[in-house]
Amino acid sequence: MNVDFTTLQQEFKRVLLKNGFGDAKAELCARTFAENSRDGVHTHGLNRFPVFVKAVREGLVDPSAEPERIDGMSALENWEGHLAPGISNAIHCMDRAISLASEFGIGCVFIKNTNHWMRGGTYGWQAAEAGFIGICFTNTIANVTPWGGTEPRLGNNPIVIAVPRVGGHIVLDMAVSQYSFGKIQEYKFRDEHLPFPGGYDQEGELTRDPVKIIETQRALPIGYWKGSGLSLLVDVLLTALSGGRSTGVITGGGSESGVSQCFIAIKQGSGNAALVEQILDFTKLGHPEEVRYPGESTLSKRNKHATGGIPVNERIWNDILNL
Amino acid sequence: MNVDFTTLQQEFKRVLLKNGFGDAKAELCARTFAENSRDGVHTHGLNRFPVFVKAVREGLVDPSAEPERIDGMSALENWEGHLAPGISNAIHCMDRAISLASEFGIGCVFIKNTNHWMRGGTYGWQAAEAGFIGICFTNTIANVTPWGGTEPRLGNNPIVIAVPRVGGHIVLDMAVSQYSFGKIQEYKFRDEHLPFPGGYDQEGELTRDPVKIIETQRALPIGYWKGSGLSLLVDVLLTALSGGRSTGVITGGGSESGVSQCFIAIKQGSGNAALVEQILDFTKLGHPEEVRYPGESTLSKRNKHATGGIPVNERIWNDILNL
Repeated sequence: MNVDFTTLQQEFKRVLLKNGFGDAKAELCARTFAENSRDGVHTHGLNRFPVFVKAVREGLVDPSAEPERIDGMSALENWEGHLAPGISNAIHCMDRAISLASEFGIGCVFIKNTNHWMRGGTYGWQAAEAGFIGICFTNTIANVTPWGGTEPRLGNNPIVIAVPRVGGHIVLDMAVSQYSFGKIQEYKFRDEHLPFPGGYDQEGELTRDPVKIIETQRALPIGYWKGSGLSLLVDVLLTALSGGRSTGVITGGGSESGVSQCFIAIKQGSGNAALVEQILDFTKLGHPEEVRYPGESTLSKRNKHATGGIPVNERIWNDILNL
Repeated sequence: MNVDFTTLQQEFKRVLLKNGFGDAKAELCARTFAENSRDGVHTHGLNRFPVFVKAVREGLVDPSAEPERIDGMSALENWEGHLAPGISNAIHCMDRAISLASEFGIGCVFIKNTNHWMRGGTYGWQAAEAGFIGICFTNTIANVTPWGGTEPRLGNNPIVIAVPRVGGHIVLDMAVSQYSFGKIQEYKFRDEHLPFPGGYDQEGELTRDPVKIIETQRALPIGYWKGSGLSLLVDVLLTALSGGRSTGVITGGGSESGVSQCFIAIKQGSGNAALVEQILDFTKLGHPEEVRYPGESTLSKRNKHATGGIPVNERIWNDILNL
């Protein structure tokens, strides 16, 4: 079943308005959830929407809260998220980073006590649409095993890097786990093994079996020791600069709320667009279809869904209609 | 055979002075090469020194050149490296980023036409020693295969993230290839397989066999498609903002010279040190020895070599004595 973008957005907005959101914030969050589904990221679009509404009803997300600037120095600012919706907080912070970059060349905004930003790529596309380089990252609840350890004690801490481009922005949106638990669950449902090891079994051996990884909850970071170090540094950097909650503290709290995030924007000079095209040509040479740049398939899904409508999970869609 | 730090540094300096370096730059580069060996990174210390001297003699590195500021706007600056030594250019750029961060909260310096910075971690430690968060990255010659491709068309583009810490700075220094070719060569010499797949064989299959990877020159990025995307974005970001040479252009030139780099420093507030210790405690819980934070073993090697001297490859050391 396909639903067009406007219907999706309006339905999300209707539900948010019933759950304590003001008009502007309901509009913004509804649009973002609809965009995430439109871009093919259903896990952080339609399929996530009921979970988000539940978090609002449970008080983990405060729809009436607004982020507040608590400290700053020229191009660097610190914000308190007051547990407002992660989407509106993140859009606000990237906007702020862009304003700072307009003034200082680069802008950097840290926010603590914010909430899950859903699809990190959203804020990369936001920066790129404004003509700025965007970099952002967040910490999460512990779901990845540190190299040498036996329990999940690191977050999958997604990292986003976006570079504007006339033919389609280049947007990397990458968690540091090899596979998300959502993806591992998909393989389990299809009764298939993962293409590559994605975590550990009870014996501490790497495995491609999704059932065993779900049992142990021990997902593998990308590049073994390398992703383990990268995940740790993202959390350390966020905590050191935001003063906010680390992966350990979030995990101790029992639910993924009150996370810490960073948003960086950099002003671009003009005149280097041809050099970027050269990079893509060189990387794809001989394999123009097989080698894809980050953001390439997002754009093709977006274009496809603009005409054909957005495919939705009918059960979840009906649940939302009844919210 | 062990050599003490001062002897190492003095010997490097003697050779550099004979090869067109002024006193200050010879001192700086000699110290950095000696520090790299002292910290256990021989591949970018003593063992690399003769290769570096050769590059100077061949004119790939110009010892008399100085970096030049060509553009800038408050916290963001662009520099031209004029093919000066990568070490002195990089130290200069991180110093500049720190100055900008002192003034604006964050500072960001791009440099083009610079040279190999040897150990990237050097500039992370530099920022951390000054009390600043440091982030830097460089592009390289193509040595990694893009996901979906069959030839090396991406660099291993090292990324450094450093956070100051009283008990020992946390410094991640990570190339996006799973193993460097230096490391793969070590396994070949020992006639051992890699612990994990590190590249492709002639049939395009992933392999742990170092001989086969050296044959194809097709190294694997960390996390398969993820590291592939990350490597590309590092190159795109560097090229878009520095206007410098991309991995493709460097590769076309046939030698790893004239690369592009970025140096970011961020000013730290005080008062979050205890939160960072909490993160390390949580991550290491139950496995204090097995789980190590990035920079931990560097520091223990450094301390060990401070008393016992720095182990050197005798053949290479004798070569240097005769340079």
